[in-house]
Amino acid sequence: MVLELKVPHDTSWDALQGLWPIFLSYVFSFLMLGIYWGNHHHLLHTIKNVNGGIMWANLHLLFWLSLMPFATAWVGENQFGINPVFVYALLANFCGIAYYILLLAIKKANPDNEALQEVLRKQTKKGMLSNVINTLAIPAAFIHPALTGALIIFIYIIWLIPDRNIEKAIKS
Amino acid sequence: MVLELKVPHDTSWDALQGLWPIFLSYVFSFLMLGIYWGNHHHLLHTIKNVNGGIMWANLHLLFWLSLMPFATAWVGENQFGINPVFVYALLANFCGIAYYILLLAIKKANPDNEALQEVLRKQTKKGMLSNVINTLAIPAAFIHPALTGALIIFIYIIWLIPDRNIEKAIKS
Amino acid sequence: MVLELKVPHDTSWDALQGLWPIFLSYVFSFLMLGIYWGNHHHLLHTIKNVNGGIMWANLHLLFWLSLMPFATAWVGENQFGINPVFVYALLANFCGIAYYILLLAIKKANPDNEALQEVLRKQTKKGMLSNVINTLAIPAAFIHPALTGALIIFIYIIWLIPDRNIEKAIKS
Amino acid sequence: MVLELKVPHDTSWDALQGLWPIFLSYVFSFLMLGIYWGNHHHLLHTIKNVNGGIMWANLHLLFWLSLMPFATAWVGENQFGINPVFVYALLANFCGIAYYILLLAIKKANPDNEALQEVLRKQTKKGMLSNVINTLAIPAAFIHPALTGALIIFIYIIWLIPDRNIEKAIKS
Repeated sequence: MVLELKVPHDTSWDALQGLWPIFLSYVFSFLMLGIYWGNHHHLLHTIKNVNGGIMWANLHLLFWLSLMPFATAWVGENQFGINPVFVYALLANFCGIAYYILLLAIKKANPDNEALQEVLRKQTKKGMLSNVINTLAIPAAFIHPALTGALIIFIYIIWLIPDRNIEKAIKS
Repeated sequence: MVLELKVPHDTSWDALQGLWPIFLSYVFSFLMLGIYWGNHHHLLHTIKNVNGGIMWANLHLLFWLSLMPFATAWVGENQFGINPVFVYALLANFCGIAYYILLLAIKKANPDNEALQEVLRKQTKKGMLSNVINTLAIPAAFIHPALTGALIIFIYIIWLIPDRNIEKAIKS
Repeated sequence: MVLELKVPHDTSWDALQGLWPIFLSYVFSFLMLGIYWGNHHHLLHTIKNVNGGIMWANLHLLFWLSLMPFATAWVGENQFGINPVFVYALLANFCGIAYYILLLAIKKANPDNEALQEVLRKQTKKGMLSNVINTLAIPAAFIHPALTGALIIFIYIIWLIPDRNIEKAIKS
Repeated sequence: MVLELKVPHDTSWDALQGLWPIFLSYVFSFLMLGIYWGNHHHLLHTIKNVNGGIMWANLHLLFWLSLMPFATAWVGENQFGINPVFVYALLANFCGIAYYILLLAIKKANPDNEALQEVLRKQTKKGMLSNVINTLAIPAAFIHPALTGALIIFIYIIWLIPDRNIEKAIKS
């Protein structure tokens, strides 16, 4: 994730203040990619069987995640306009669906890993819930971009609540 | 691979639509580098003997791959013009040949690794086939850039078909 | 950390000389991120229990560190002006506090790791001291930016003194 | 290493041809960083005792290497002018000296590792020779930049000759 903050050419506070929408969208994206990284990293450490399906599901997820900096920058440079926020929510939803597909691929390839299955049950539940909210967040941009923002923040909160099961699976 | 999508300065759909050739060339490159990454990653996990020859063959491959974002951007910024598509196919061919050389270097350094030899037999067959198609794709740009595109997509399909042998080699 | 040195378009020494404030701020940032990387890398290799708290504390630290290239570039492009230096010291302080929080999270999750506890005792002492100095360095920018610079260099010296305990912990 | 090839806005061969000095300097840097990466990677896999001294020597090397893309771009954008080539050779020499310091730090920390000591003996010999040639390459830029180029290519050849001892050390 590349920080899209262009360095202001003077040292005034006003110059810095003009960057707030870009900074805010940066915080949003950092949080989102951080949550994915955290859950993804832990998940991949728990699994033992990696097959082609998991590899391609992973690459598919990476494709949508790689488009988020573009969406973030478009949102930030246009002060949370309707269209950029719509595209941001749409791409975020594709990321969520791709993560869900990855979960299913891992589930299928590791049927005997008890601890992992427990983690996957929780994560697929969370994933389904956040995908539903995210789907609502897309058209919400046409009511007000702030509504989309609120729904996406709600998704972040769901995922930021620590998942004790992942930790247990790693320990054992 | 850096996403070369310049963020449009207004929020209209027209502004976004103007990015389609860059986006399409991005998808192409993502797919290509993803296929290389997937096969390369799996291959290097299967081998045990790494020598200088493998190291330099790997660096050689990396050199040509590192030029792909440039070729991709040139293709995208010029809406699939003949010359950029020609250069793209040429560099893609150099990548394919470099991968083939890497396969040969690995083959030579690991003569006793049965499972790896089986994987290499399949991959060198696939590699040879895709290099032949890619060689045809280069002059095809002068007939029509779309012909080059179709041939390269065909190569991607060859590689995207899951290689069960790699998975077996990893498991055992 | 991206080097923000724009390449001069002519070959004169004057063109190169104009880059000195950007180069100096680059050296500063390289040193800072290098010290974090070194201590962080060693710390994470010593711990055994990673939980959600450590993961989020780590991500929090990464967030502030990711803003340093922006602050560095702002300092460099404005020849060490008061406001940029103030923001640099402020963000550096947030990094320091985030590192301290990470230390506490690791401490709590690994109560029985004797060697680690010894390392943490030393690092929290160093961390507390450098956070106090960094807090003073922020308002010091309004007296003179060079005062802030001197205080931050002093912090670097504290951390650059080799910590024999980390090495011992790794060996055993 | 970032590829500094700016994408031409038209599809003519002339547009591509204008990039040759940048491309050539890119090849130079790729080769240099590749050689460092290869030797460095192998070296760090052979050692067992890492201490603070090695860590800082490594960071010191990384600092000079991180400046090479800047020097490369300056050389490329000014068609191998005297000053850029002089700075390139100077920084390359700092990299070489930093690598030599790293070798000494590793040597000191691993006195009992027989295989490593043998590798280090060869590498310090090579390192000393290439540092001497590189020192000559710096003032040579004032005679003719091509002379500097020839001397640096000679250094690359020295390092590209495979070092069988590293391979042996890895195998055993």
